[in-house]
Parts: sequence; C-alpha cells; structure tokens
Amino acid sequence: MTGNPAPTEAELRRAMRRAIGDAGNGPARGVNPQVGCVILAAQPDPATGEYAVIAEGWHRGAGTPHAEVDALSQLPAGAAAGATAVVTLEPCNHTGRTGPCSEALLAAGVARVVYAVADPGRHSGGGAERLRAGGVEVIEGLEEAAATELLGDWLVTARLGRPLVTVKWASSLDGRAAADDGTSQWITGPEARADVHRRRAASDAIAVGTGTILADDASLTARADDGSLLDTQPVPVVFGTRPVPADAAVRRHPHELVTLSGGDLAADLADLRARGIRTLFVEGGPTLASAIVRAGLVDSYLIYLAPTLLGGGRLATTDLGVGTIDAQRRLVIDGIERLGDDLVVTARPEGTH
Amino acid sequence: MTGNPAPTEAELRRAMRRAIGDAGNGPARGVNPQVGCVILAAQPDPATGEYAVIAEGWHRGAGTPHAEVDALSQLPAGAAAGATAVVTLEPCNHTGRTGPCSEALLAAGVARVVYAVADPGRHSGGGAERLRAGGVEVIEGLEEAAATELLGDWLVTARLGRPLVTVKWASSLDGRAAADDGTSQWITGPEARADVHRRRAASDAIAVGTGTILADDASLTARADDGSLLDTQPVPVVFGTRPVPADAAVRRHPHELVTLSGGDLAADLADLRARGIRTLFVEGGPTLASAIVRAGLVDSYLIYLAPTLLGGGRLATTDLGVGTIDAQRRLVIDGIERLGDDLVVTARPEGTH
Repeated sequence: MTGNPAPTEAELRRAMRRAIGDAGNGPARGVNPQVGCVILAAQPDPATGEYAVIAEGWHRGAGTPHAEVDALSQLPAGAAAGATAVVTLEPCNHTGRTGPCSEALLAAGVARVVYAVADPGRHSGGGAERLRAGGVEVIEGLEEAAATELLGDWLVTARLGRPLVTVKWASSLDGRAAADDGTSQWITGPEARADVHRRRAASDAIAVGTGTILADDASLTARADDGSLLDTQPVPVVFGTRPVPADAAVRRHPHELVTLSGGDLAADLADLRARGIRTLFVEGGPTLASAIVRAGLVDSYLIYLAPTLLGGGRLATTDLGVGTIDAQRRLVIDGIERLGDDLVVTARPEGTH
Repeated sequence: MTGNPAPTEAELRRAMRRAIGDAGNGPARGVNPQVGCVILAAQPDPATGEYAVIAEGWHRGAGTPHAEVDALSQLPAGAAAGATAVVTLEPCNHTGRTGPCSEALLAAGVARVVYAVADPGRHSGGGAERLRAGGVEVIEGLEEAAATELLGDWLVTARLGRPLVTVKWASSLDGRAAADDGTSQWITGPEARADVHRRRAASDAIAVGTGTILADDASLTARADDGSLLDTQPVPVVFGTRPVPADAAVRRHPHELVTLSGGDLAADLADLRARGIRTLFVEGGPTLASAIVRAGLVDSYLIYLAPTLLGGGRLATTDLGVGTIDAQRRLVIDGIERLGDDLVVTARPEGTH
C-alpha cells in the first residue's frame, strides 16, 4: 500500500479492530453472522493528517440492514464518495431480505473496501469481484484471524452449508443402548445424564427420530437435576415420516417443534442452518444416528460408555454401511473422561479437525 | 501361649518365616501350592534355651512328597516325638498321589502343629480337626498374611475351584468385533496386539471356541512383534463339540492341546484347574466369551476399544442373558489406558475384588 490519499495500513488495521468491536454488538446466534463496518473519510483531517471515522454500523439480526448499509445510512447523500469502507466480512453480492451490500457501496461511491474474511456463502459470495468490476479498490484479509474468531461457528457452518453435527449415544461397554426388552433406565449414571443436559443447553437444536418420540415421549428439553428447565433450550427437531402425536411432550417444548422427513439428510440439515441452527445435537435413536453417520454428516461423536454389559440385540448403532473392514469409520479420539462411574469419549471422523 | 515346654510365639514366628522361605524353593506354578515345613525339637537346647530346627522340607511339585513328609523323612524313626511342626499351609487330610499329612504327623508323634493358612480344598481340608482329634495341639493363623501372599493365585483358585478367568475382546467403539463380511484385521493397533501377546504369555492357558479355530486357524501362541514365540507359552484350550482339524495351527503349539466340550463350563474349568491351570485367558469368539459371562465365571474383563465404528451384526458379545435392564451385568472399572490409538479397559464384575 502507498501513502496519501489512502489511509495507512496501521490506520486500516485500527479501523478493522473497531469494526470487529462494533460487530460484537449484534446477536451472536442465528442465521446471520456478526458483522461490523467502519467508514473512513475520503481525505485525511488537515489538522491531524489522519482519516477520521465518519460512520460505523453493525448487523442487528436477520431482516435488518447489513453492517455496511447500517453505516452508510448515517451519512448524508454523497458523503461517502471517495471514502474507505472497512468491514469484517466480504460485502455480500445477493439480494435476500436486504439488497446486496456491494451495490450499496458502489452507489455510495466509496473508493476503497477493506475486509477481513471472504464470504463463504454459495449465494452471497462474489462481492469483492463486483466491487473491483465497479472500479473500487479492494483489500482483503486484514485482521483475518480476529475476524474469523468473531465469526466462530457461523463461518464453519457457512462453509459446510449445514449445522455442526454432534452425534451422541450412551451404551454399555459392549455397545448396547438397552436391554432386550427395551428398558434402558439407567445405563449411565447421574453425572453423565447431567452432562448431556448441559450439552443440550449449549446446542442450538436437538434432534431425535420419530421412534424415540413414540417410544419414550422424549421432551427434548435441557433440564437441571431437579427437572426444572435450564436457561437456554435447544430447538427440538424430529426426523421421520411418522406423525408426532398431538399430545407428545415435545409439543410442549418452549421452542416450536421442527419436523423433517429425513429422506434427504443433507437437505434437511441445510434447512436447519437456514433457520439459524448452527449446532445440532443428535441424540438418536440408533436409526437416526446411524443414518447420519452413513451420510457422512457427523462432525463429532460423544459416546457415553457405562460400566456394564448387556448383550442382546438393542444396539446403539445399526447399519453404518461398513461391509468390510477397509470401509470402517475410523475416528480420532479427542478425549476420554471418567464421569461418575461412566466413561465419556469425544471423537471426530479421521481426517477432520 | 505359655512358656516351656512349648516354643515361644516369637520362636514359632521365626520358624514360620523360615518355612515360608523354604516353600519358595518349590515350583510356583502348577496344580499344587508352594508349601514349606520346619520341625522344632521337642525340648529346648540346654545350652541356649531355644528350640532347634531339627528338620525342614518343602513340596517339589505334583507327585512328590508334601512338605511335612519331606521334613519328617529327614529324621530317624521316633525323632519327631513331642516335636513342633511349623507348616505354611494346614496339613492335608486326604489321600491323593501321597498319603494324608495329618496322619503322617500323628504317626511321627508330634506334640504340636502350627500353620499359617487354612486349607481351602474341598477334599483336602479337615487336617487340623484330625490332628486335634489325635491329641495334637494345633495353632493356626501364624504369619497368615505372608503365607497367603506366597500362595497367591493358588489359594484364590482353590477357593473358587477353578482358574481365574479373564475374558478379553477387541471391538470398535460401537461393540463390533468385525465388519459384516467377517473381516477384522486390523481393528486394534500394534500396541494393543502386542499387549495381548504379553498377557497371553503371562497366562497359564488361553481358550477359544471351535468357531475361532475353524474361522481363523488361531495358533494360540504368545508371539513377539516379529512373529517369534515368547519364552513362556500358555496351554491352548479349545471349547466346543466340533472337531479341531488335524492340520490346525493349534496342533503345532508347543503345549499339547486341551479340548473341552463347553457343555458344562463350571466342570470344564474345574478340570483345567486340576491340570494345574490357575489363570485362563479367554479370547473368544463371541459365543464362548458370552457363554462364560452368562455362566458367571468371569473374574476380570479386558476390553480393547478401537477408535472406529463398524455397525452391522458382528458383535463382540452375543446373548448375555440380560432380558431387562435390572439384570444388566454391572462392572467396576479398574483402569482405562490409551494404548497407541486404542483404549484398553480393565474391569471386573461388581461385587468382586
């Protein structure tokens, strides 16, 4: 980069850090990312020689203006001509509930756009290209690490096009989820069960198959030891084609039930992400868990192993599409912990991070 | 205890520790225990006031004299009259390949028998009672802890009437021993496999079902990484009614093959103990392992869990007789270790030591 009439790199970095701070004012969860934007004057202040911040903005959630538009809206017409827009995420290039930010920046006549992280969206990307084609100087990757950290799982799920999926099950040491008559209370102890409820509360959504609803009337709430609801509750999601009964406990969940057929799991998961669900906690039963494993849609496994043997036919997993040993689904174990009498293994598919 | 003409407790303890030392000269493994015997003079030495050791002996293995008889054999006829026999294990009272020691001691005219550990044998017990009935003073329990330690698993297996049984299997985290087509090489890694071979070498015998012999042509040897045989080899035991082929690898084992029907596992295990087998390492397959679990004949479990998922129908355990959750076979986990990429869980049935 060169000197006047452009801001120095140090000035741009300072502005970017300010934009990252602004972004944090927006909602951390939901379908949209936290984004901030700072607009620097077209000319340096004659007194200080520095480029003043003439506007700043952030995104306040789905359906509200994007950060760039929020910042531009504070300026009178023409005031952004020749200015530098510093934004934490590449300006979008598609018309959703709001218009494309790239067009808004071009219309405002900015001379320069600096962003930290490229837009990974399949529909929203291409903003930088559009801006360059319109004659705007584009600088990318400034303070990328800090902005990436801010975006967190929004960015990961945007790249995946689906929520992060954790598949959880509890089994005996020999892999059974229940005794032969279907009874399973209690295989794991109170510490493991409390851990599950904490992890439910930390997830955007929790999913089961209709079989689990019909067999256990699962409420899909995150509860404390005394049965009271924890402060945050996951969205309940039920996969399957059998109807959820009108009087099912899950219909009294604080959040409205989402039902999905499970016929195309990848599409169903993309649907959940479009609803703002970034983390999905799949609790079973074995049919749903195994289908998601087979589809290769698991990011992490959470396996509670109780110190017991059951034998018999009630397995925690069913068919995983492993016909021969070369097709085994190797995992990397990230941790093993003793939780009360139980073990909890956290793992992820080999070759993932 | 009182003073003369009996040895003091300190003298008896010293003699017992010497007998324990003598016992250690005999073979540590096999059907019979290590036993030592020290004979103290009937009268104190006039010069020192102490009771001299006039003979000592130990058991040299099945078919040879017991320690008491070995010691008495060193004395001329009548020399043990009024003497004190200090022996690490209660003198036996049955006629096996040698006559009952209780009778030998009575015939020798000893005044007193001191022993450390009661004979747990179903047939061999009752020696103390016989001696008392014959007018001999009997003192029991002297230096019991040290003598118990010396007897080790002989004593435990004598009480159980069978070998100590370790059931081992290796499975995926979801409890499968193989992929659906039966392939299983390799689920666990080289470290776990080397661990298995070390444990084989440390066991008196290793058992599989005929299915494993027929499917895998298992050699049942303990081998080093390079395939060479380790220094000690377990006796190979095959359970089942199907014949072991004449050209099976297990027939080339350094030890002669033992075949048992498996129709009455408790009787089969008693048979193995009568052959001097104190520790049995059961390696499967699932049918044999599950039958031994169902029969309640397991002392410890050794479960290798590989970081992989297989699904499907090839389970490490089959029917364990657990119809409902209240009948689950709870375990106490003694240890969890990471071995290469694998986990190894050591456990025992709840309520056992």
